[in-house]
Amino acid sequence: MIVTVTLNPALDLTYGIDALVPHGTHRVSTVAERPGGKGLNVARVLHALGEPVLATGLLGGHTGTRVASLLDTAGVPTSFLPVSGETRRTVAVVDGTDATGFWEPGPVIPPGEWSRFGAHFRDLLPRASVVALCGSLPPGLPDDAYASLIHLATAAGVRTVLDTSGPPLRHGLRASPTITKPNTTELAELVASSDASPSLIRGLTTGAVVVSRGPDGLLAVTPDGVRSCAPPAALEGNPTGAGDACVAALARGLRDGTRWPELLADAVALSAAAVASPAAGEIDPEVYHRTLMALGAHSGATT
Amino acid sequence: MIVTVTLNPALDLTYGIDALVPHGTHRVSTVAERPGGKGLNVARVLHALGEPVLATGLLGGHTGTRVASLLDTAGVPTSFLPVSGETRRTVAVVDGTDATGFWEPGPVIPPGEWSRFGAHFRDLLPRASVVALCGSLPPGLPDDAYASLIHLATAAGVRTVLDTSGPPLRHGLRASPTITKPNTTELAELVASSDASPSLIRGLTTGAVVVSRGPDGLLAVTPDGVRSCAPPAALEGNPTGAGDACVAALARGLRDGTRWPELLADAVALSAAAVASPAAGEIDPEVYHRTLMALGAHSGATT
Repeated sequence: MIVTVTLNPALDLTYGIDALVPHGTHRVSTVAERPGGKGLNVARVLHALGEPVLATGLLGGHTGTRVASLLDTAGVPTSFLPVSGETRRTVAVVDGTDATGFWEPGPVIPPGEWSRFGAHFRDLLPRASVVALCGSLPPGLPDDAYASLIHLATAAGVRTVLDTSGPPLRHGLRASPTITKPNTTELAELVASSDASPSLIRGLTTGAVVVSRGPDGLLAVTPDGVRSCAPPAALEGNPTGAGDACVAALARGLRDGTRWPELLADAVALSAAAVASPAAGEIDPEVYHRTLMALGAHSGATT
Repeated sequence: MIVTVTLNPALDLTYGIDALVPHGTHRVSTVAERPGGKGLNVARVLHALGEPVLATGLLGGHTGTRVASLLDTAGVPTSFLPVSGETRRTVAVVDGTDATGFWEPGPVIPPGEWSRFGAHFRDLLPRASVVALCGSLPPGLPDDAYASLIHLATAAGVRTVLDTSGPPLRHGLRASPTITKPNTTELAELVASSDASPSLIRGLTTGAVVVSRGPDGLLAVTPDGVRSCAPPAALEGNPTGAGDACVAALARGLRDGTRWPELLADAVALSAAAVASPAAGEIDPEVYHRTLMALGAHSGATT
């Protein structure tokens, strides 16, 4: 089973309005509520693919209850640790031009709750073959929060995929996740250069690093060498959630022992299928299979 | 006891940000959650004054549960009818300049739920001396929703204060609420003129009409004549909620049989106390008592 960890989940609200008028009052015509946070998107993609998955992390308050209820409706199995704070909301206000976003910071997690999550996470590891750790940390958690979880997973013989940014990424890499998936912006911030060479990337961690480069596809720097894979055609759509679909593919491939060429093709195809979908955490199966065929691979390819 | 009716309550969210950038993404630095909707503001003001009050209306879903929990924490007694839809949110994004507002429409109320609320409301009437009916109607309710409730209250010998706008105001006036409180904008929209004469206002209803005119204070057109009362000094602060404090004073005065001069002075002073407070539903007791003294009245004056 694949376990996804979302320490700072959200209730994503999307508001449709006519046109944004700064300092005006807007009647919202449409309201959409979705579970938010990168780890939850990964879990929803895996669930849509029919893969056994369990979403864990921290949820609290009335907003947390709402997120749990949305995941339940979607059929995604969960095992969250309840926390005392209120899970955050994100509000995306979409007018005819583009989206304007407002992101709440998330609840402050006291040390006692973080320590309880460590125990909860350890209890889940015997059922896990791969753990995907994704997204930002809520206030109050140490920068090495993901690093601690990766150490616990590794000690239990469970492989890990890490997708975060900033200090949690820096600390996490030192714990040698099996695969780390930064995008180009996150990588550039980490190495303080917009043009990181494979050898520079290689020096960051003993595990593999898969860099998602938007329309240029994926670059994998692994202990066995450097590989890349790009989508066969330019993609139009919503790039939010493409990285989460990529992580879903990487986690599934780790579980199945998929070889790198097939694994990268699968990740590129699943990312394309996410771009073709209107919201993060969703995929277009037809685009997924068409892209896999164009890349000469087949779905869920194992060796 | 005073009963306040809020058919379209809300969870009011106030987000603090640095500066609004249209089509940008904003990290929210501060989040405040308050019960929203004019009737709930009236109930909170009355509760702060130590007056027995009961808030009723329609609440649904996780957002409704959150609103109920905030009212419970504030100690405001409630008896809401649960509905199947989700209570709406309002989001006010405040930067260094001003607020930008996003108002969800509220849940669609099916006819069966509206009919159940009628029965629920009738059951509350024996305990009520005055009912305040305030704010917009959620989708699905007929324009004469307030008119129906006013007829029920009048038949039970309970006096009424109506504060709404548009078609619900037009229909409500025909049901002869004891006092109707439009502001100048709502009145102008109703009579299609920005300069409604007392005789024109007199022809709208058989009850009294108290027009709130912002810094110019109150104009009361009553079966006994026309009176006005203005604040003794210019007010600086937050005008949101001033009308709700005015309704709270009018409802209390109706209950106590307060004479018009004292009633209008009390309503002006309580409105001023609301302007002096940062959020709707709250009052500054010091400003309240100071304004009452300046108007030559005293708090809760009865005859």
